[in-house]
Amino acid sequence: MRTGLTPAEALASVLSHTPVLASERVECAAALGRVLVEPVASGRDLPPSDNSAMDGFAVRAADLEQASPDSPVELKLAFEIHAGGIPERPLEAGECARILTGAPLPEGADSVVRQEDIEAEGPRVRFQQPVPNGEHVRRRGEDTRVGETILEAGTRIGAAETGMLAALGRSYVAVHRQPRVAILSGGDELVEPDGDVSGGRIVSSNSYSMAAQCRLAGAIPQYLGIARDSPEALEELLRAGLASDVLVSSAGVSVGDRDFVRPVLEKLGCRLEFWGVQMKPGYPLTFGLFPEGTSGLNPLTFGLPGNPVSAMVTFEQFVRPALLHMAGHTALHRPTLDVTVGETLRKKAGRLHFVRVTLERRGKEVVARSFGNQSSGVLRSMCDAQALLIFPAEASELPRGGRARVQLLDETFLASRQPAF
Amino acid sequence: MRTGLTPAEALASVLSHTPVLASERVECAAALGRVLVEPVASGRDLPPSDNSAMDGFAVRAADLEQASPDSPVELKLAFEIHAGGIPERPLEAGECARILTGAPLPEGADSVVRQEDIEAEGPRVRFQQPVPNGEHVRRRGEDTRVGETILEAGTRIGAAETGMLAALGRSYVAVHRQPRVAILSGGDELVEPDGDVSGGRIVSSNSYSMAAQCRLAGAIPQYLGIARDSPEALEELLRAGLASDVLVSSAGVSVGDRDFVRPVLEKLGCRLEFWGVQMKPGYPLTFGLFPEGTSGLNPLTFGLPGNPVSAMVTFEQFVRPALLHMAGHTALHRPTLDVTVGETLRKKAGRLHFVRVTLERRGKEVVARSFGNQSSGVLRSMCDAQALLIFPAEASELPRGGRARVQLLDETFLASRQPAF
Repeated sequence: MRTGLTPAEALASVLSHTPVLASERVECAAALGRVLVEPVASGRDLPPSDNSAMDGFAVRAADLEQASPDSPVELKLAFEIHAGGIPERPLEAGECARILTGAPLPEGADSVVRQEDIEAEGPRVRFQQPVPNGEHVRRRGEDTRVGETILEAGTRIGAAETGMLAALGRSYVAVHRQPRVAILSGGDELVEPDGDVSGGRIVSSNSYSMAAQCRLAGAIPQYLGIARDSPEALEELLRAGLASDVLVSSAGVSVGDRDFVRPVLEKLGCRLEFWGVQMKPGYPLTFGLFPEGTSGLNPLTFGLPGNPVSAMVTFEQFVRPALLHMAGHTALHRPTLDVTVGETLRKKAGRLHFVRVTLERRGKEVVARSFGNQSSGVLRSMCDAQALLIFPAEASELPRGGRARVQLLDETFLASRQPAF
Repeated sequence: MRTGLTPAEALASVLSHTPVLASERVECAAALGRVLVEPVASGRDLPPSDNSAMDGFAVRAADLEQASPDSPVELKLAFEIHAGGIPERPLEAGECARILTGAPLPEGADSVVRQEDIEAEGPRVRFQQPVPNGEHVRRRGEDTRVGETILEAGTRIGAAETGMLAALGRSYVAVHRQPRVAILSGGDELVEPDGDVSGGRIVSSNSYSMAAQCRLAGAIPQYLGIARDSPEALEELLRAGLASDVLVSSAGVSVGDRDFVRPVLEKLGCRLEFWGVQMKPGYPLTFGLFPEGTSGLNPLTFGLPGNPVSAMVTFEQFVRPALLHMAGHTALHRPTLDVTVGETLRKKAGRLHFVRVTLERRGKEVVARSFGNQSSGVLRSMCDAQALLIFPAEASELPRGGRARVQLLDETFLASRQPAF
């Protein structure tokens, strides 16, 4: 087991051991946000036939070649075609057909003249100008052609892809599985949110914030409960999590002498890859694998620190990218912004700090400010923070007015209060 | 009814008629992404008592005032306290107590000396230096205090807020209702995705892309089905949607002579606010209200154009902001980016164009490129587009290398492929 890794080394270790999950077929409506395992090819031409882009008259362009205001051409109004209808018969020379938007062009016709471009309407229609061949016609297959790959493997399914799958007649689609994440917390002082908090007991809130972090990353949390501070209790809960793709435990705040998470994990066959990352908050992070898991069970295993902020920050940096990778995503990390430091920040050189900051737009600049109590026990600082400022390991001061990089937690910061037009 | 509005006028009209929905109480786990109707106050102090931030020894700082390497002070090791435990008795002068992270400080103690800062351990513990009063102690209530407002009304519930609600012992929370959106499409040429597409019929794919757009905006879609091209069929479906908060219809591609959506809406009591917006795609957008709706039913009513791209673009610009406003959000609009135009774009002055573009990072710049077939019938262009470029109404050319603004549809464009550290 390695120890004292940099955050970058720790993340590289996690991702090098993180598989991309296998495929499952889901109803298209349930596939929103998921990632395609295989390409989707079209089984049909769309549109299915040449059709009109306008309300007007289907014509043969050759018939109108000589048309002019001085010498208009009259064509016989032969029939009408509406969307969903099938033309009665081919269009003969000297004829035109009334056609509505989306309606298929009759055989023989090649162009459409818009309703507003003709002079009069009756049993015969008068045209005052020629029409370019193909005008206002949507060609069969201009959206999709039979056999053509429409959505590549790896595509994330959004609203347009959902509509496209419907248009292609697909009911099911093969996507990467969502990671199942078993969550547990440990500590004699912990109770559930509706539990008795007398005698200094506190709620196992980490499990709830981590379950929400799972959902936000598209994973399925399964909360196993609170392990009491005995190796037996812990082993029982950990065993219940072995069938998951990821197992995440957070200690209670007690991590001292009675921290037997690691021995129990090792007893269950977990190979610990590293312990301890040069970051604050979050140093005492553990990561391990079950390389020869019973019956193929081998959850990635994260032991997160017990302080509420440490648990959330280490989840963000290491668990979230792993969950996204498992589900087939390629952009695994939160958006980053270059910001102006709003007030001088100081620390000892050595560990990388993730400083909770608020963000404020000032013209083209974004100013980041640290605030209030940065103790890793103060969950409220995570509620108030919009971003984590990266205070590099080797730095001991970030002067006011200098540049820094933040990792955006609150994506609504990018949403606009004003429309784009 | 007004007609020919600019997009900004149309959006202002929509939002001026859009209510913020009332409150409902939901389980906290289901509240992720929702917006608080009322502030959340703390019913408890967190932490519930002064407690240790470290593994070490609880002491009275006064006892160590004279400690130095030359003249260490020895204190009697009186008892031990672990997290979730209650101190046996107060700490007397001349005593220390072994304490684990998170454990409550015994009465009498005021400071904690870290385990690594003492010289030796036994029945008596030797200290070589003074300790600042309060060192390594987390104060009762430093995270939350009884009666204090912790989360303001209007807060969007994320992972940290979910953890905080658990920590406060909340099981339910009052949030704005999610808008219910009735969706229907109309046209004799339309079939469901598993339907028979012979004879030029096409799938009612707009309903599926719009349902996904609803979900992405946090709303609940209800798909009513396809209305055939008769006033009676349309009226029946529209009536089924009157109990929703929003009613969205998209025509089939047929919108010509047989467009009786408006008369049927008016028959049902809908007051049409506007028809026709100076934009492309999407001109034939209709918006109306039911000002005196039967039994208080008054869905906002959008009649979207039938072309797949027009339907999606008008939904993005007008329906999505309305849905977010209804649910209590304040940032209603997609993120915008200033970009470099990758190739010269031209159009007639008059209408604002939403040009589907791909984005490419080039150093600090983002280059936007129009591509392929920009026909409003080509849904694939929405699959491939990462953003909509705003080509202003009065402009007729955006030269290559010039600046423009885009509205970001694919938010993963902002996600990072590299970690922030």
